[in-house]
Amino acid sequence: MPVHEFKVEMTCGGCAASVERVLEKLGDKVDKININVEDRTVTVTSNLSPDELMEQIRKTGKTVTYVGVKKE
Amino acid sequence: MPVHEFKVEMTCGGCAASVERVLEKLGDKVDKININVEDRTVTVTSNLSPDELMEQIRKTGKTVTYVGVKKE
Repeated sequence: MPVHEFKVEMTCGGCAASVERVLEKLGDKVDKININVEDRTVTVTSNLSPDELMEQIRKTGKTVTYVGVKKE
Repeated sequence: MPVHEFKVEMTCGGCAASVERVLEKLGDKVDKININVEDRTVTVTSNLSPDELMEQIRKTGKTVTYVGVKKE
């Protein structure tokens, strides 16, 4: 399953928790979520398209950019 | 127009900006937005129902509770 990487404008643990909760609403469609506030990086393991994932993250009101599929 | 008060789990300026952006998506349906991160208070001047406003704020992934209509 692809691991999609995004840059999300996060500045505290509360920001990270918000992003995580919004992604968790996708349920089974998302396999793994990894968030690093310092790097402002969110990786999502999912078969959903980058656009679908970006749309979901954007609901938080945070600026999101797509980096690409993460290389192992 | 009623001023609805909510408590929203916010811990930094980024959290506040997210809540503001999500409420601004309601456009003309919202007249004024006031956010105080320290008090975790969000007040919204709008004819929308508390439930509609709460639903919108909840999109951020943050915990929200409704306080009531603010007395002037």
